[in-house]
Amino acid sequence: MEFSSKLLEKAVNEMAQLPGIGKRTALRLVLHLLKQPAEHTHFLAGALTQMRDEIKFCQSCHNIADVAVCEICSNPARNHQIICVVEDVRDVMAIENTNQFKGIYHVLGGKISPIDGVGPSQLNITSLVQKVQAGAVEELIFALSSTMEGDTTNFYIYKQIKDFSVKTSTIARGIAVGDELEYADEVTLGRSILHRIPFENSLKNN
Amino acid sequence: MEFSSKLLEKAVNEMAQLPGIGKRTALRLVLHLLKQPAEHTHFLAGALTQMRDEIKFCQSCHNIADVAVCEICSNPARNHQIICVVEDVRDVMAIENTNQFKGIYHVLGGKISPIDGVGPSQLNITSLVQKVQAGAVEELIFALSSTMEGDTTNFYIYKQIKDFSVKTSTIARGIAVGDELEYADEVTLGRSILHRIPFENSLKNN
Ligand SMILES: [Zn+2]
Ligand SMILES: [Zn+2]
Repeated sequence: MEFSSKLLEKAVNEMAQLPGIGKRTALRLVLHLLKQPAEHTHFLAGALTQMRDEIKFCQSCHNIADVAVCEICSNPARNHQIICVVEDVRDVMAIENTNQFKGIYHVLGGKISPIDGVGPSQLNITSLVQKVQAGAVEELIFALSSTMEGDTTNFYIYKQIKDFSVKTSTIARGIAVGDELEYADEVTLGRSILHRIPFENSLKNN
Repeated sequence: MEFSSKLLEKAVNEMAQLPGIGKRTALRLVLHLLKQPAEHTHFLAGALTQMRDEIKFCQSCHNIADVAVCEICSNPARNHQIICVVEDVRDVMAIENTNQFKGIYHVLGGKISPIDGVGPSQLNITSLVQKVQAGAVEELIFALSSTMEGDTTNFYIYKQIKDFSVKTSTIARGIAVGDELEYADEVTLGRSILHRIPFENSLKNN
């Protein structure tokens, strides 16, 4: 792309650094900002900068928060002995949205992925293992995505805590509620059959 | 979406104001920035703000530029009597890329669109008509996208200049009707300019 302005080119190039945003899309977004009052751009730039510079991570669960200890961790009504291990804030938001979980979380900040250069030391694993070793945890629920990286991360943590008295579980994998069986992928369907539950239990949950 | 942080929520909401960026995508982009060094966010915010505050529009053709008169308008090797009328900077970039056009441009800044609340007064039409009235223009090439808004805009301008001695043409419809100019391949777009037809002829075809 040949730009008629260095300022335009720089803005497009910075925007195109974002994942999934190509140069064409970046140009479209930047031209949109040019058509809007300057305040729109100032608000966007200000919100991003303020977030990046001032955001905090909960000292206990490492979730994104505006305070030192997040609302979930500081809530005495939640069961602090049941910890759900997740990858990032989106998973916390998704699980909170179900209203089915009354324990607390531990946000790893990613998954072990040699290809992406992410090793255990870059994730919030040590603090989780320490919680378990301190005897404060009754159950760990692994809720990472069921990819090779997720499985690797689960197992890496499991090896370090298996000798302590803590229950471990993973969230059930199966056919999504309402989905047609015939459209499910083989692996999911296979797991659904292997991990079938007593029919009476399925009635209780409805 | 229930956010665990107001700073995060604000950044996501600002990002989701951009056209085609939903809340989920905005959250993904913002979390990406959080994983990168803070400088990435500072560079992005700085580039957008600087562009919005300092960008100039060429005094002659209204294209985005870093100087008062753009490189094309100030180039004596270009034919200043042949003016290609386009919607925005993307069309200039696309046509320049074909190397088929040696005249200059006039950037309208949009198309007449009652639905979007864009009237003739919001576009750079008066200065174009003045150029023609001053007798300085030999030919006007209408290169707006062939949508109803494009046709309306072409005709609005045509009515004001048809009594002056100026040739009018539209780029050849090698481009599919309804397609945006910027997505056309170079060869097609180049031919469209070479085989432009008198504007009156394009009216007969409708
Ligand atoms: Zn917390
Ligand atoms: Zn110019």
